[in-house]
Amino acid sequence: MALIVQKFGGSSVADAEGIKRVAKRVVETQAAGNRVVVVVSAMGDSTDELLDLAGQVSSSSNPREMDMLLSAGERISMALLAMAIHEAGSSAQSFTGSQAGMITDAIHGKARIIAVSPHRIKTSIDKGDIAIVAGFQGMSQDSNDITTLGRGGSDTTAVALAAALNADVCEIYTDVDGVYTADPRVVPAARKISTISSEEMLEMAASGAKILHLRCVEYARRFGVPLHVRSSFSQLEGTWVLPNPDDTIKIQEGEPLEQPIISGVAHDRSEAKVTVVGVPDIPGKAAEIFGIVAGAHSNIDMIVQNVSTHGSGRTDISFTLPIVEGADARAALKTAQADVGYESVEYDEQIGKLSLIGAGMRSNPGVSYKFFKALSDAGVNIDMISTSEIRISVVTSADLLDTAVRAVHAAFDLDGEAVATVYAGTGR
Amino acid sequence: MALIVQKFGGSSVADAEGIKRVAKRVVETQAAGNRVVVVVSAMGDSTDELLDLAGQVSSSSNPREMDMLLSAGERISMALLAMAIHEAGSSAQSFTGSQAGMITDAIHGKARIIAVSPHRIKTSIDKGDIAIVAGFQGMSQDSNDITTLGRGGSDTTAVALAAALNADVCEIYTDVDGVYTADPRVVPAARKISTISSEEMLEMAASGAKILHLRCVEYARRFGVPLHVRSSFSQLEGTWVLPNPDDTIKIQEGEPLEQPIISGVAHDRSEAKVTVVGVPDIPGKAAEIFGIVAGAHSNIDMIVQNVSTHGSGRTDISFTLPIVEGADARAALKTAQADVGYESVEYDEQIGKLSLIGAGMRSNPGVSYKFFKALSDAGVNIDMISTSEIRISVVTSADLLDTAVRAVHAAFDLDGEAVATVYAGTGR
Repeated sequence: MALIVQKFGGSSVADAEGIKRVAKRVVETQAAGNRVVVVVSAMGDSTDELLDLAGQVSSSSNPREMDMLLSAGERISMALLAMAIHEAGSSAQSFTGSQAGMITDAIHGKARIIAVSPHRIKTSIDKGDIAIVAGFQGMSQDSNDITTLGRGGSDTTAVALAAALNADVCEIYTDVDGVYTADPRVVPAARKISTISSEEMLEMAASGAKILHLRCVEYARRFGVPLHVRSSFSQLEGTWVLPNPDDTIKIQEGEPLEQPIISGVAHDRSEAKVTVVGVPDIPGKAAEIFGIVAGAHSNIDMIVQNVSTHGSGRTDISFTLPIVEGADARAALKTAQADVGYESVEYDEQIGKLSLIGAGMRSNPGVSYKFFKALSDAGVNIDMISTSEIRISVVTSADLLDTAVRAVHAAFDLDGEAVATVYAGTGR
Repeated sequence: MALIVQKFGGSSVADAEGIKRVAKRVVETQAAGNRVVVVVSAMGDSTDELLDLAGQVSSSSNPREMDMLLSAGERISMALLAMAIHEAGSSAQSFTGSQAGMITDAIHGKARIIAVSPHRIKTSIDKGDIAIVAGFQGMSQDSNDITTLGRGGSDTTAVALAAALNADVCEIYTDVDGVYTADPRVVPAARKISTISSEEMLEMAASGAKILHLRCVEYARRFGVPLHVRSSFSQLEGTWVLPNPDDTIKIQEGEPLEQPIISGVAHDRSEAKVTVVGVPDIPGKAAEIFGIVAGAHSNIDMIVQNVSTHGSGRTDISFTLPIVEGADARAALKTAQADVGYESVEYDEQIGKLSLIGAGMRSNPGVSYKFFKALSDAGVNIDMISTSEIRISVVTSADLLDTAVRAVHAAFDLDGEAVATVYAGTGR
């Protein structure tokens, strides 16, 4: 008897009809002979409504109380789902994050999971019930306060529970029916990926693919949890994300055993480029600059240091970071200008990042050539480059990003025939 | 430094403006040199909205999940109130029922409080914070499930906390500015009562006065908690409900020391009258009938057994019970008709109950005479009578109830000059 963890986002439980549809699906999964644990997000827009209320009563943020407030959202959706499951003929019990044993640190709003002790969940499914767990929330270890996990929190709750319960699979239900070789809104011919390794999925997520949050994939990879990303609006198989790529063969019987060289193309418009101009070309200056930016809690992604202009004794250092962190980073740099001794800071939000991901590129030396040739043929200028073993990323100007994504996607024969189905909304 | 527990109902925190108004009041109370614990209900209509959602996903009731669902309401209001208090310049922490140590039995939807262990609340106020506690909810002792306390739950939470913390007073904020000598909607000349004993308040509540729930007054009386019932919309002194009537003198300096004979007139339209006709006039039959009704979980209020008609060997037994319990009680009686051997059951919802309450009637023998004379002069026919040491109640036809209330109110010189202020809405 398999143990399946199913996670449904806010758009899947946005209204009574959605909740009933999810209940039907959960009950069918159980009726097929599985033990089922469900992780659920807050209903549709309810989080925004709570944030709006908070904004009406307070101009500053109070992280502890914000977590208390927001955690009410899952409480509502999970209790309603339990009722709908009873109505659909099975029995279910809902559990808050703390009841489910999601122990976190005390960083309100973006707490990290420290331990998972799901003994109440185990008792519930062992006696034949469906256990429903509030996603996105936990309880702090020392102060016993309610915490929320921040972005990707509900997916991470599901994966963490799947790991702690040693589940056979963690199904992530979402608006689209799987992971695509590129964003179907940019590349209409993008194909659904049937299986992908956790490693590649990690690079996809880190490179801007929105479908799974980096954090959840990291957790799944670390604890060896197989993910199945699929749509709550259809019965189609979605995309399997497998910690051990050898599992691919077991799952995808009848498909070619050879892994494709390239998994997909990801893109990201959420970053900005900062160029620190005229940095004294002496040892320690780069470290000084990145220390300042890190002190402003900015996450640097790509870095390029230009060759020092002959004889000037100065160089330029460019890096990218999330647009939302741009203001803080610039302010910190400005404060330190005299200390560092640079000349000026340039800032550009009109950039886009394109990444090609594939475990197969390790053993296929021709990938880089084909990649840069495709961009060049499409007339796309490259601003910055970074690579990992299984990824090549470039920064281009924002207005050429879509063209670049389509050109690379076609060059690697990723285009398919079917047009992807994209459903509305996103969960948290 | 006094410790004050303040309870605000749903209508006081119905929207952002209400929450900010309550926050201001709470902060002012603290600034006046008090330690403050606040108990808050769910916002305005939010409970009805949650019930509506539950009705959309399920046709049957699931008490455990219903409690999980409804408890989200206070979580929202209390977190928002904490934020608003921060905004108003003080600091506050909100606590769920379980965090506040409200331990209950496991009867979902109408749990009883078993123990109160408010150590987190104590820590919070000891360090100078305002502690905000979710009304209406607790955690079951054995199963650690979320429970709700049912009707009057938030008031009872406040009183229970006040008792456990040995608070100086428990202030119950409501829509009206105190307890009146009669319902001002029926008797416009009703006067606000400045102080009343818990004993009398208990009779008022049991007799249909809606302002305080019986359960909360019982709790306050048992644990000696002084209540102050007042309006959240004004700064006026409200009504003090005192466990020890001698405290009256301390609190109401400058007022006459002598207690009035009569505190007020209460009325109730929520009961129905059941008459079991032709009951065999042999010992044990009344017990049999009331056993059947109790088995249907009906709460019998007044009982009248008619004198056996000479020679028939049969008698009639009438009693009143809440209209909402009428159907179950009648069904249970019908099932047992052959066993009991009665002839028929009559059922009448068109009745009203009027009660005159006053500790002074113990030592004033003329009260009954004046009471029945007033009713008779007003042309009101009396159907049933019951009395306690400090109360006389009668059942009349529903259409004469208002006339009866006004007649009795006037006869005991309770009419005042000021017209009562009644604000909209009711809390839970």
